[in-house]
Amino acid sequence: MTSALSQELLDLRASIDNIDAVLVHILAERFRCTKAVGALKATARLPSTDPDREKEQVNRLRLLALSSGLDPDFAEKFLTVIIEEVIGHHETIAFNERNRA
Amino acid sequence: MTSALSQELLDLRASIDNIDAVLVHILAERFRCTKAVGALKATARLPSTDPDREKEQVNRLRLLALSSGLDPDFAEKFLTVIIEEVIGHHETIAFNERNRA
Repeated sequence: MTSALSQELLDLRASIDNIDAVLVHILAERFRCTKAVGALKATARLPSTDPDREKEQVNRLRLLALSSGLDPDFAEKFLTVIIEEVIGHHETIAFNERNRA
Repeated sequence: MTSALSQELLDLRASIDNIDAVLVHILAERFRCTKAVGALKATARLPSTDPDREKEQVNRLRLLALSSGLDPDFAEKFLTVIIEEVIGHHETIAFNERNRA
């Protein structure tokens, strides 16, 4: 690898590292919001999952992915990983709420 | 559900939808960077994977997750999903480069 190529690789990796820091912080903020949703749902004794809302989110993200040049299948896969985690949190919050009551 | 509770849920969902739009756009930008890395690696005939770099990325993200209140195991899972996709892209770029040469 020439030093020009090596420098280009290092520059791209620095951008990727910055983007990853953004991803971690925005995901942390997303889970702050979904934990608040979980607490609201637990108080109102609403179910942890909401298939209609999830379907809407998937459709919206696929459209956003198309417009930004991201593979829509990857966007859906990625959202599914997040939603599975959120449902787990909601179930824990609901369980704790029932045991507290 | 009272209307105050319902409004709080709608407000949180509006924030989640905005955050998801950020996630899609920042992921699209991350893949723009990794595709450029893939092209550089293909030109220099470098392997698609780099276990040392991946290990560094995981360790760094786990620390960032801890500092931002995100579950480090989730951060690692999430990065693994992205890296698997990136390696797939790199292999496609390398395959096309070999067939073009």
